[in-house]
Amino acid sequence: MTEPRFDVLGIGNAIVDVIARAEEDFLVRNELVKGSMRLVDTTEAERLYDQMSAAIEASGGCAGNTAAGVASFGGRAAFIGKVADDQLGAIYRHDMKGTGVAFETAPLREGAPTARSMILITPDGERTMNTYLGAAHELSPEDIDRDTVAAAAITYLEGYLWDPPPAKEAFRRAAEYAHAAGRRVSLTLSDSFCVDRFRTEFLGLIRDGLVDILFANEAEMHALYETSDFDTAVAALQRDCRIAAVTMGASGALVVTPDAIERVPATPVETVVDTTGAGDLFAAGFLFGEARGFRHTDCARLGALAAAEVIGHIGPRPATSLRGLAEQAGFQLEALTRA
Amino acid sequence: MTEPRFDVLGIGNAIVDVIARAEEDFLVRNELVKGSMRLVDTTEAERLYDQMSAAIEASGGCAGNTAAGVASFGGRAAFIGKVADDQLGAIYRHDMKGTGVAFETAPLREGAPTARSMILITPDGERTMNTYLGAAHELSPEDIDRDTVAAAAITYLEGYLWDPPPAKEAFRRAAEYAHAAGRRVSLTLSDSFCVDRFRTEFLGLIRDGLVDILFANEAEMHALYETSDFDTAVAALQRDCRIAAVTMGASGALVVTPDAIERVPATPVETVVDTTGAGDLFAAGFLFGEARGFRHTDCARLGALAAAEVIGHIGPRPATSLRGLAEQAGFQLEALTRA
Repeated sequence: MTEPRFDVLGIGNAIVDVIARAEEDFLVRNELVKGSMRLVDTTEAERLYDQMSAAIEASGGCAGNTAAGVASFGGRAAFIGKVADDQLGAIYRHDMKGTGVAFETAPLREGAPTARSMILITPDGERTMNTYLGAAHELSPEDIDRDTVAAAAITYLEGYLWDPPPAKEAFRRAAEYAHAAGRRVSLTLSDSFCVDRFRTEFLGLIRDGLVDILFANEAEMHALYETSDFDTAVAALQRDCRIAAVTMGASGALVVTPDAIERVPATPVETVVDTTGAGDLFAAGFLFGEARGFRHTDCARLGALAAAEVIGHIGPRPATSLRGLAEQAGFQLEALTRA
Repeated sequence: MTEPRFDVLGIGNAIVDVIARAEEDFLVRNELVKGSMRLVDTTEAERLYDQMSAAIEASGGCAGNTAAGVASFGGRAAFIGKVADDQLGAIYRHDMKGTGVAFETAPLREGAPTARSMILITPDGERTMNTYLGAAHELSPEDIDRDTVAAAAITYLEGYLWDPPPAKEAFRRAAEYAHAAGRRVSLTLSDSFCVDRFRTEFLGLIRDGLVDILFANEAEMHALYETSDFDTAVAALQRDCRIAAVTMGASGALVVTPDAIERVPATPVETVVDTTGAGDLFAAGFLFGEARGFRHTDCARLGALAAAEVIGHIGPRPATSLRGLAEQAGFQLEALTRA
C-alpha cells in the first residue's frame, strides 16, 4: 500500500451557505424546526429567501467544511461534490482552492444551479438550515475518481448524500474503492431527521462494516437506535462500530470503541455566535488526527478545538489557522502519541 | 414642498464584496496600496481572485452601505445602482430589500456581470479594495428616477460614480432633480486616488453649490486641496462648503460649517476587525440625523456610533440594529434637538 497523498477526502453536497440572522418568531412563523436541516424546492426556496433579512454568502456543505478544516490543520485534503457552471459554483471552487483543498469534480453544465442552504441564525447562535440541493443533487457514481479515493487515508461521507438518489450509488462506490485500496471510510449521520429518513440503510452500512469511523451527535445517535436512553444508545454504538465519536455540544464528546468509552471535554467558548459547522469541524480535527495515527482521545481534542473556533464566528469554516490554534493550545502535532 | 418619502436616497456602484483575509506580504507581492481602492479589469480580477484565499460574499458599495445603515437606524432609505441579471445581482437585490431599502433600478439584461470588489483584510483590520465594475459601469441617466429623487430629503452620491462615464451624467441629473425639488445633495469623495483622478470636477461641483453636505476623510481632504497641512485644508473646506464632515479614524470627526468647526470623538472600539464600510456608515448616521433635522454634532455622533459598529466585524454593513445601539447609547432619536 502506497503512502496516501491525502489525509482526508470529503465527499458531499457542494453547497453555498446563505446566512442571515433571524428572531425566534421567524422560525415559528415559517414552521421551521430549530437546529434541523430540511430540503426545500425552488418555490419554497424563493418564498423563504424573500422573507429573509440581508445575508452573507460563504461556501459550506458538511464534507466540504470538514475538508477545509483538515487543510486548516495543515492536512492534505480533497473534496468531491457537484456545483453548477455558474457564479456560486465559481465561488465554491475558488474557496476550496483558496483553502488548499484539491477539488476537481467537473461542474454540471446544464440544469439546476449550484446548491444553496439558507441558514437562519437565532440569537442563541443555533442554526436552522433550509437547503435547495440544485446541482448537488446530480453527483453521480462517475464523479467518484478512483485514484483520488485510493490516495486518501480516510474517505469521509456525509449522511446527507442519501437524499439525492444518484449520490447514494456514488457513496457506495467510494466506500468500495476506499476499502479495496486498504483505506478507511468514515460517515457522519449529518442530522437526526436525515437518520429518520434512512435509518435502515445507515444501520446496514455500519453493520456491514462499510463504515470504519462514525460521527453522530446525541440526537442522531438516539434517532439511529430509536431510543431515548443514552446508555442504551452508546452500548449499541459500541457493539456496532469500530470507532464512533459522539458530539455532545458543551458537554464535549465521547469516543466509543469496542474496548473503551472515553469522554473528552469541549473547548471553552466565550460566546456562541453561530453553531454552523460545529460537527463538521469536530470531524475535521478528529479525522486529521486519525489520518496521522494519533490516539483517539487526542483526535477528539483536536476536534473539540476546531469546533470551538468555528462556533465563535459567523460562517461554517475556520476563520483562523487551526494548526496555529492547536499549537497555541499546546498541541505539538508532529509529536502526538501514535495510537 | 411635500414631506419626503425617504430620508436618504443613495446612488452608487452596486457591488458585491468578496472579502478575504490576507497577510501584509500578499499586498506587497501584488503591488497593492493598503487602504486604497483600485479598479481592475476582467483579467486582473481573475488573476487576483485566483491568488486569494477563501472568501465570504456580502453586498456592499459605498452608497449601498450608507442606505442600509440609514435603514438600520429606522430611517427610510432608497438606493439606485446597476446590477446584472445574474446570481450576484439577485443577492444584491435581496440584501437591499432584506434591509428595508427600496431598490427598483432595472438590472442590466445583457453584457457584464454584477460588479464585485475583492477586499483584502490585513491583520490590522485595514481593507484594500480591488473593484471590477462590471454592470455597475452601465448606470445611466435613464436609471435616475425623478420621483424617487424628489421624494428623498437627501440624495447621497459617491465619488466613485465618476469612474464609469455614463454614471457621471446620472450623478449630475440626480443633483439637478434633487435641487429642483428643494431637497439636499450630499457627496462623499470616496477615496484619495479617486480625488486625484477627478479633483477639478469635484471642486467644481462643490464650488458651484451642487453639494450641500460633503464627506471626506483626511487623506481625501488633503488630496482635494493638494496640501499636507491640516489647518489649510480645513480652512479651504470651510470656505467652500455649507456642511462638511471630515472623518479622522480613531481621532473622531470634524463638522465644518461656515460658522464653526466642531470635533466629535470616535466611539471606542475594542478590536478593529475590518474597516470596510467605516466611512459609509459614518455617512449613514450623519445623513439620517440631517434628514431628521438634528444638530450637526448629534448627526456626527450617530455617524461615529454606526462606524464603530461596522468595524467591529467582517462585512461592510451593520450586523446589529443601529437604532437599538443608538438607544442603548442613550440617544433618544425622536427627542434629539433640532438644528
